[in-house]
Amino acid sequence: MTIQGKSVYSGVAIGRLAIYRKSENQVKREKIADTAKEVKRFEDAKDTAKQQLAGLYDKALKEVGEVNAAIFEVHQMMLNDLDYIESITNMIEGQQVNAEYAVATTGDTFSEMFAAMDDDYMRERAADVRDVSNRVVSILQGNGGNDLNADEPVILLADDLAPSETVQLDKSKVLSFVTRHGSTNSHTAILARTMNIPALIGVDFPEDVDGKMGIVDGYEGKIIIDPPVSVMEAYQKKKAEDEEKKRLLQELKGKENITKDGTKINLYANIGSVGDVASVLANDAGGIGLFRSEFLYLESRDYPTEEEQFAAYRKVAEAMAGKKVIIRTLDIGADKQVDYFGLDKEDNPAMGYRAIRICLDRREVFKTQLRALYRASYYGTIAIMFPMIISVTEVQTIKKIIEEVKKELDEEKIPYKDVELGIMIETPAAVMMSEELAQEVDFFSVGTNDLTQYTLAIDRQNPKLDNIYDSHHPAILKMLKMIVDNGHKGGCWVGICGELGADTTLTETFLSMGYDELSVSPSMILKVRQEIRSLDLKA
Amino acid sequence: MTIQGKSVYSGVAIGRLAIYRKSENQVKREKIADTAKEVKRFEDAKDTAKQQLAGLYDKALKEVGEVNAAIFEVHQMMLNDLDYIESITNMIEGQQVNAEYAVATTGDTFSEMFAAMDDDYMRERAADVRDVSNRVVSILQGNGGNDLNADEPVILLADDLAPSETVQLDKSKVLSFVTRHGSTNSHTAILARTMNIPALIGVDFPEDVDGKMGIVDGYEGKIIIDPPVSVMEAYQKKKAEDEEKKRLLQELKGKENITKDGTKINLYANIGSVGDVASVLANDAGGIGLFRSEFLYLESRDYPTEEEQFAAYRKVAEAMAGKKVIIRTLDIGADKQVDYFGLDKEDNPAMGYRAIRICLDRREVFKTQLRALYRASYYGTIAIMFPMIISVTEVQTIKKIIEEVKKELDEEKIPYKDVELGIMIETPAAVMMSEELAQEVDFFSVGTNDLTQYTLAIDRQNPKLDNIYDSHHPAILKMLKMIVDNGHKGGCWVGICGELGADTTLTETFLSMGYDELSVSPSMILKVRQEIRSLDLKA
Repeated sequence: MTIQGKSVYSGVAIGRLAIYRKSENQVKREKIADTAKEVKRFEDAKDTAKQQLAGLYDKALKEVGEVNAAIFEVHQMMLNDLDYIESITNMIEGQQVNAEYAVATTGDTFSEMFAAMDDDYMRERAADVRDVSNRVVSILQGNGGNDLNADEPVILLADDLAPSETVQLDKSKVLSFVTRHGSTNSHTAILARTMNIPALIGVDFPEDVDGKMGIVDGYEGKIIIDPPVSVMEAYQKKKAEDEEKKRLLQELKGKENITKDGTKINLYANIGSVGDVASVLANDAGGIGLFRSEFLYLESRDYPTEEEQFAAYRKVAEAMAGKKVIIRTLDIGADKQVDYFGLDKEDNPAMGYRAIRICLDRREVFKTQLRALYRASYYGTIAIMFPMIISVTEVQTIKKIIEEVKKELDEEKIPYKDVELGIMIETPAAVMMSEELAQEVDFFSVGTNDLTQYTLAIDRQNPKLDNIYDSHHPAILKMLKMIVDNGHKGGCWVGICGELGADTTLTETFLSMGYDELSVSPSMILKVRQEIRSLDLKA
Repeated sequence: MTIQGKSVYSGVAIGRLAIYRKSENQVKREKIADTAKEVKRFEDAKDTAKQQLAGLYDKALKEVGEVNAAIFEVHQMMLNDLDYIESITNMIEGQQVNAEYAVATTGDTFSEMFAAMDDDYMRERAADVRDVSNRVVSILQGNGGNDLNADEPVILLADDLAPSETVQLDKSKVLSFVTRHGSTNSHTAILARTMNIPALIGVDFPEDVDGKMGIVDGYEGKIIIDPPVSVMEAYQKKKAEDEEKKRLLQELKGKENITKDGTKINLYANIGSVGDVASVLANDAGGIGLFRSEFLYLESRDYPTEEEQFAAYRKVAEAMAGKKVIIRTLDIGADKQVDYFGLDKEDNPAMGYRAIRICLDRREVFKTQLRALYRASYYGTIAIMFPMIISVTEVQTIKKIIEEVKKELDEEKIPYKDVELGIMIETPAAVMMSEELAQEVDFFSVGTNDLTQYTLAIDRQNPKLDNIYDSHHPAILKMLKMIVDNGHKGGCWVGICGELGADTTLTETFLSMGYDELSVSPSMILKVRQEIRSLDLKA
């Protein structure tokens, strides 16, 4: 039997199928005489849950990085929420009911309340408050922990997996994730990419397959259950080839990014948190081409302080031991919303109040970040990059603010180094002005994702337009040529840090155009290196 | 006393102030014995209201055009709504109450219901249902009609004016509109533009100014109450100068659009409905450079038929008597939503499913329009223009569909002429591809509004970004040059139909670049002609 789904990460997995069943947390309403004792039971369960969550946070931090681990901090905060705790204790005391019932009911009520809010962030919290309440109920019932009882590694089938469920799993026992629900960007999908195992979503598997043999084909997005011997052999061969390819890639570590005819290019990595540095080093990137500083703001409940930022930037700069670290200043707005900024809802947020537009309005926020960046520059090789630039005036204003920051640091006798300044080229305006902009900065880095969406006037997250969104559109390729030519004319080095940079069908084009750098996700470094080393531009 | 507001149309008005007070429609709940008679009273008042509305529609059609008159058709439809009528008669019969009370209460209930809907179109109807209910109540109470009792023309002050109120006004008695509320695009603002009189919004005037002398300065957005003699004299002079300017403009009718050194350019008009043709002819435009066909779809409750469209296009083609009429195919989506298309809500509608993207998906809708256009071509000089083009493929697909349409018409022996085919250049992609696109079509028309918003990545309707939205951005000027050069290279004529076309500070730039046509709103034709005739490109 073959069932078609949608692949969220490629590769082949072969093994037994195991259906992951959530512990059902059947909760009955019971009358309780000793409510004080029942409140104590709840308090204890809550504390146990918090300890578990702290442990899960540490585990997730190592496995999936800070951004993805943050969810467990949110869960801990929910268990500290006074309204939530009061609702539960009031119910136990007022209605004389058991703690399980009070927690489950409160969880449902809060979840519905969040779901009804006119705020995307809060709506997403609806699932979390249910998740955390289930955890407490589970502890109260004496259950808890891992529902996956497998002796050998399995292909895990589930309706969907909550973040807390995926993190509790023993990863060494999972060959692949296959879910009925979930999206391309769901937590499970991200986890699969991080674990480098194939994963499918939208697979409507029957319930009676537990324990059967299966093959997950992450290339074609399908799962084959009880495969015939011939099919099994074909996939075993395919899997062996994949492993051979991976092994060959590992051999590329320490090698140069050089074509057969001797053209060299820098290959840097894109990261989103301090925790990602490990995989940058593991994959032998030459530097960090895009360090998204948003995580500091997205994970925080208030503006991150200069000290907090300084510590993070310094950590990365030191870990990279002198290799270049290009940090992009705050790029929020559009689909990245931060509550405490108090931004208004917009009709077209992608063309809205975001990134440098906010920073140039909110100077105190911008200066705090710039001070932290300059202070950290002393501990490595930091470069600073500004997002969403549309005019020369903006760059000149930024440079004035930087002069102020440097003057302040001088006066305070705080050491810093000179840093390279660059801009993202991600608006058509910046492309058209690239000749003039090159006079103002040291480097350009092309953000192909935004540039493509503005150029084609297509919201890249709108599924209705998937069929006309063309990342290889000739208008974009013409712009890429214009950018590198104008950049070089003005003495800038020019790179690409958008997703297109990792598209190996274009690596030859980028090299021929004269690009100096490609910055890609850490897991793509060796693949792109392999492509570069296979090319002969003179041929 | 001077009060600052915001100008929505410039000019100077001098005269007595008159505060417009809405008839308050005080409604009391009364017990009625003969409910059958009371229902009859309601039915009669409803019929009277419908007659009034039909009259208002005809009046508005002449004064403000089809699009703005449509509101009175909507009001008539509301009075035919069974739910609305039933609610009122049920209340009269069930609660034995007077018709006034039943209408007012039902009006409130329906209005609140509409206001709570998750649909912009329906939310806007909340004010309409209240407006139409007030009309019926007013008739029941023996009131009705005009609240403006002025012997001489006055400056009209109001909180805000509903469409039905402005249309009922005797226009010859209004020198200027000044309102406390309202927006730049409110009905009153549009009316002021159509009437060519100054108008201010956001003016918080005191209540005791009725009958005092006042000056409205539509240039600086302020109103001066009880002005001293010296100020009055200065404004009388200013007003005389304005009138002299208008008179001089009128003298430009029939003159050529030619610079002192002999460079000529076509000056066409942008229109949005059949009713606008009168002002095109009155202002001596050389043709219609942009006929927005959306009105046919926006005013309708269902897809307009081929016959309906054919009649409208033919009417305009005939009225223009052989002068060129460039009709743009359906451009809905983004901020122009049509319910019966059933379009999904989008996160970034301006970069969403709109215009040609819908037409190429919904072939039957597109072909109906193309058939109507080709049929109408026989009766004048029609050209067809396609919006939101981003690729050569799209144009080639359109041309294939046109071939199908022509073949059908041939088979049905329906006559048509050859028409010029052109595209809007309003995406950065189209600019970059303009050399290739010029091979495919007869003309380009630059949509500067959309082009600017995509190039700068700034939603032009987002007030938060007003300070960085620069319609003269050098990136746009570079693009304009690129478009005209590439267009001419491919044998196309090239025009501008966006708002920038009417910006007389750039007329010289456009002529120097080599533009062949500017299409502007009818009221701007003579001003731009004046500018053209004052220029000497050789100087």
